[in-house]
Amino acid sequence: MEHKQLTELLEQMTLDEKVGQLLQLAAEFYSEKAEEKTGPMTNLGLTQDDINNAGTTLGISGAKEAIRVQKAYMENNRLGIPMILMADIIHGFRTIFPIPLGLGSSWDLDAAKKVAEISAKEAAVSGLHVTFSPMVDLVRDPRWGRVMESTGEDPFLNSRFAEAFVKGYQGEDLKNDFFRVAACVKHFAAYGAAIGGRDYNTVNMSERQLRDSYLPGYQAALDAGAKLVMTSFNIVDGVPATGNKWLFRDVLRKEFGFDGVVISDWGAVIELIPHGVAQDKKQAAELAIEAGVDIEMMTTCYTENLKELIKENSVDEALLDEAVLRILTLKNDLGLFENPHRGANVALEEEVVLSKEHRAAAREVARRSIVLLKNENSLPLSTQETVAIVGPAAASNDVLGVWSWQGKKAEAVSLAQGVAQLGADYVIGKEAFDYFEPTQAAIDEAVSLAKKADKVVLALGEEDWMSGEASSRSDIRLPQAQLDLFKTIQAINENVIVTLYNGRPLDLQGIDSAKAIVEAWFPGTEGGAALADILYGKYNPSGRLSMSFPETVGQVPVYYNYDNTGRPYKPGSQEKYETKYLDVSNFAKYPFGFGLSYSTFVYSDLHLNTTELIPGEAITATITIENQSDIVGEETVQLYIRDQIGQVVRPVKELKGFEKVMIPAHDKRTVEFTITEQLLRYVHSDQNNTSDPGLFDVMIGSSSKDVLTQTFKLLK
Amino acid sequence: MEHKQLTELLEQMTLDEKVGQLLQLAAEFYSEKAEEKTGPMTNLGLTQDDINNAGTTLGISGAKEAIRVQKAYMENNRLGIPMILMADIIHGFRTIFPIPLGLGSSWDLDAAKKVAEISAKEAAVSGLHVTFSPMVDLVRDPRWGRVMESTGEDPFLNSRFAEAFVKGYQGEDLKNDFFRVAACVKHFAAYGAAIGGRDYNTVNMSERQLRDSYLPGYQAALDAGAKLVMTSFNIVDGVPATGNKWLFRDVLRKEFGFDGVVISDWGAVIELIPHGVAQDKKQAAELAIEAGVDIEMMTTCYTENLKELIKENSVDEALLDEAVLRILTLKNDLGLFENPHRGANVALEEEVVLSKEHRAAAREVARRSIVLLKNENSLPLSTQETVAIVGPAAASNDVLGVWSWQGKKAEAVSLAQGVAQLGADYVIGKEAFDYFEPTQAAIDEAVSLAKKADKVVLALGEEDWMSGEASSRSDIRLPQAQLDLFKTIQAINENVIVTLYNGRPLDLQGIDSAKAIVEAWFPGTEGGAALADILYGKYNPSGRLSMSFPETVGQVPVYYNYDNTGRPYKPGSQEKYETKYLDVSNFAKYPFGFGLSYSTFVYSDLHLNTTELIPGEAITATITIENQSDIVGEETVQLYIRDQIGQVVRPVKELKGFEKVMIPAHDKRTVEFTITEQLLRYVHSDQNNTSDPGLFDVMIGSSSKDVLTQTFKLLK
Repeated sequence: MEHKQLTELLEQMTLDEKVGQLLQLAAEFYSEKAEEKTGPMTNLGLTQDDINNAGTTLGISGAKEAIRVQKAYMENNRLGIPMILMADIIHGFRTIFPIPLGLGSSWDLDAAKKVAEISAKEAAVSGLHVTFSPMVDLVRDPRWGRVMESTGEDPFLNSRFAEAFVKGYQGEDLKNDFFRVAACVKHFAAYGAAIGGRDYNTVNMSERQLRDSYLPGYQAALDAGAKLVMTSFNIVDGVPATGNKWLFRDVLRKEFGFDGVVISDWGAVIELIPHGVAQDKKQAAELAIEAGVDIEMMTTCYTENLKELIKENSVDEALLDEAVLRILTLKNDLGLFENPHRGANVALEEEVVLSKEHRAAAREVARRSIVLLKNENSLPLSTQETVAIVGPAAASNDVLGVWSWQGKKAEAVSLAQGVAQLGADYVIGKEAFDYFEPTQAAIDEAVSLAKKADKVVLALGEEDWMSGEASSRSDIRLPQAQLDLFKTIQAINENVIVTLYNGRPLDLQGIDSAKAIVEAWFPGTEGGAALADILYGKYNPSGRLSMSFPETVGQVPVYYNYDNTGRPYKPGSQEKYETKYLDVSNFAKYPFGFGLSYSTFVYSDLHLNTTELIPGEAITATITIENQSDIVGEETVQLYIRDQIGQVVRPVKELKGFEKVMIPAHDKRTVEFTITEQLLRYVHSDQNNTSDPGLFDVMIGSSSKDVLTQTFKLLK
Repeated sequence: MEHKQLTELLEQMTLDEKVGQLLQLAAEFYSEKAEEKTGPMTNLGLTQDDINNAGTTLGISGAKEAIRVQKAYMENNRLGIPMILMADIIHGFRTIFPIPLGLGSSWDLDAAKKVAEISAKEAAVSGLHVTFSPMVDLVRDPRWGRVMESTGEDPFLNSRFAEAFVKGYQGEDLKNDFFRVAACVKHFAAYGAAIGGRDYNTVNMSERQLRDSYLPGYQAALDAGAKLVMTSFNIVDGVPATGNKWLFRDVLRKEFGFDGVVISDWGAVIELIPHGVAQDKKQAAELAIEAGVDIEMMTTCYTENLKELIKENSVDEALLDEAVLRILTLKNDLGLFENPHRGANVALEEEVVLSKEHRAAAREVARRSIVLLKNENSLPLSTQETVAIVGPAAASNDVLGVWSWQGKKAEAVSLAQGVAQLGADYVIGKEAFDYFEPTQAAIDEAVSLAKKADKVVLALGEEDWMSGEASSRSDIRLPQAQLDLFKTIQAINENVIVTLYNGRPLDLQGIDSAKAIVEAWFPGTEGGAALADILYGKYNPSGRLSMSFPETVGQVPVYYNYDNTGRPYKPGSQEKYETKYLDVSNFAKYPFGFGLSYSTFVYSDLHLNTTELIPGEAITATITIENQSDIVGEETVQLYIRDQIGQVVRPVKELKGFEKVMIPAHDKRTVEFTITEQLLRYVHSDQNNTSDPGLFDVMIGSSSKDVLTQTFKLLK
């Protein structure tokens, strides 16, 4: 459809029909079963007409059902406008990939793109058009449950992942490529900065900080073409995002030039009432439409009030029209006017979803996401040694993590299954092992297995529900029973290797004396197989943390890119008057960028081709990495920059580039980075993104704490 | 001196002499002993001329020494300009009062004024002219060590204390009342919001939040007439306060109309270099003078560079002149041109300092600062029952807390001494009892005493160095040995009463099953006597927390005046999707405003004389409090207000008034509060401090969590 046809269509629409386009309802409203639909309908005070006019839906899936619903919907819709089918496809559709925090640890943008492509394909053939992904919320507090859905603590890394996700979901030709879905970047803005890590909590930061650290991720997703933006639940400088005109009209629309669809998060419009900025649904509707929220998810402030607000001239009908036009435009961008069923295809669904190829990809991505945190010559395991695999996660298929809507634990591979596939000499218990309250029989069995084994793989972790939305924890250690179990097992067999499934950086006190620690996150459908690959050296670990692990929760927030102070922390110094604690270091237990390999990489010869950077030109920084081991391995070479003197205080280092490079045994590679003036820009007090002439440190190395340094000067 | 004479004096001054006025040096530079002076002089690259020209000094005390130094100084100063003698008199001079966090718990403004008066008098007769007090930094993080120096987490309460301190220090006629000192409010601005509670750390908040919550305390001190303002070490939106032109020129000078002296904190000018906003001392000097910092404390950026900066026209000499004039004006306001020795008086010093009267006041204020947190019918003790007083703090005179420069532990009263004064039947051990590593003999002795006693007073706490500047803790529980001791003692005698000396809200896990808990802070010179008074009912406890005690450090920050969210926390609700943790409540263990009495107070009949407030008029809210016990007691009646619908999200409650009222046994009192439109104002998105017409909740009660509620409407 041409743009002109869309405006003509808009002109034909009644006020009710236009308002209807702005309503999003969940799958049950389109169910064939009357009882599923009637209850919610009544609760929301909706009529069948409202449902027939609702422009989009969320949570319908399966090609057959999607086709049925779309068909019925269009028949009931006076103008035959198709609806958009949306859903939360976060880290895979049926084939589940590692949670985003794990994927972030891959530092592998191709992998992220692949994940998005496969997710899109499975979702698209199952009838979906839009996914509420990527979430690119920067997060520095591991207590926040939704940290599992973020790629971590760094604006640069998050931005690159944001782009990769959007490109993977949407492809090059969204309209005609039916294996793609539109991406919805979320949550605009700064949802990840909830105070105390309590989900939905107050966010408070300066506009400069917001622009400098938090907005770049969203902007990168938009620059990559994301079609939708979701509002966040939190306030931005006091005003809930979903009613924040400055944030959406001034920043998102005007500054960022976004002309796609803005959708509220679930119930976020009506939540303007409990937030205390709207006295009723009518005022909530007014604030949201004024802010520029096009689609109201799952509540009826618009449905009930927009018409009246327009009639009484409280809201300009032009605001409604532009929202409807954006929604119609999205429908057209998805080709729905011509192909209302798009990719939905029962036969293809059967073939594509959870295909062997997809499972193989899931295994590969999971392997790349796993981070080896500690290894005192204990790993890799040999298939010749007797290994006891014990603990609550040993035989558990709770490996998907939340936001795995269509994922099925029954289809997932446990660690025990993964190890079995490798033909290793392992023993495993028969007793069910609870994460919180294991039976004495289970503990006794674990002890007895551990006694007889050469090494013990103690599989610990969080259960999936312990992270994700509304799943914040004040104590980020493993459950006490697991700490006790570690102690018990270690007393019997000192060769304890801990593997972890979890949705956040943990406080590892109590288990950090293990010989080895492997962070597997929630690795997805093929998780246990991938973890077994790591343990047995079928894959040489290459994952790197995208978020710092604190020493203790009392030290939170701990992030690598902190601002320097006037009395900087110098570990080991005898000076009292420093920014620090009396009882613990300021630094992370395992910092951003950290991760071990079975290879040994040695960095040398950091060289800049010039030490003066002329704006418009570039510096080439090269560094040599030698693999001094007998095993081929992949290194993630990281470029950090520090602005020595800023108009405002600058972080001690900021990631500005990275490259993954495979290095054969006893061989070396040279990696090259290009540094331009653009990389040196940051948001100044005047809110402008510019650079300061002067000295900069270039730091290249294997993690945020292990770098070589050179200095250059940016000329005016 | 007339203002005209000051400007004439300024005109006579050479550039060197003017720059000299801006330098503040510590006492050693004016020492009679050459070796004390020469080393630091050489280190700072100072000449004797620089020292002779330095306008102010810090840390000199004792009338005799002060007179000697001033005399010698004026003789060496070409124009015979007197110097100002400044020092940190924080919670008493030689007679030490409770730490400010304790004083804040008194909710007693008269007491605060009295403390400041006595502090001023002792300091003044000892030769001092200025104190670096009050500190009014709002603080929400108990990990921060300097929380002990703050009156707590509430802008309103902090503001009232700020006023009381300033009035107490300065009196009505500073120039002629030689028993007064000038007050320096600190630290401008927002020093208490250090991220992670790490001292000097990054502060990040929106301008609106800064204005709404953090600036009112400073402003209140200025409105009360504080003569000086000290810069804070932290950054304010990226720019270190000490080089923050917006903060000092635009906000402090222009908006707040402050025309007094701005002094840097210790070394804060040179710290612009490690902060990374100045490349050298010269640039640091330029940034600080441009920002409007008049006095540079203890570093020589001004001394070395201002002259050159002026000569090369980088800095306008007018900036220097206005700084010098402000310093000369302060000298004149202190009457130093006429009376350069002011209150310094050897005979009076002998009489006044640590006088019997001052000690009595210290005991009274300490009693009013102590908070009874828990009492299961265990207190007050009877002098008839046998009480074992055990634990590290039992006989300790570590009761002063830090920032007690002239205070002497040897002059302080321990708990054991306090109890002895009351003639109670108590037993106490002979073994020294360490706070961290008590000997087995000490533990055994405590156990043996506890076995034979009716009740045990277990005296626990932090040592003084565990709070204060650069003394942050990530773990805010008592040291492990004390938790172990509690367990041991409780197993022997269940009647355990815990007393606490500490400089911050603690995580009380591990001791919260005590029968009673008494929070004594660091109560000062008469601390042990005051605590004994509380334990034995010689004083009915009336203290109320001015800062919330968290359940656990993993829950920090926890403060009563939090913003509501769109998914508010409802304790006990089965709803998953709320702002909360999975493992602990959002609420404090002991909230702001909380504190028990030996009396029982019952609130009733909250009444508003009208439910519609017309701007310019007032609502009178009355409430009745009945003392249903047999003992007279003092209640702190607290008024909170909530703006139901704001332009921005408003806190769930905000303190807007309080009154302490003594109520005889089985009697009642009615307390009245006046509510005006002014009380309802807050800072809106446009940075203006205005009110919103609409509904407000009035909550009156005995703590922030225990209130009766009524509603009124603010009319347009």
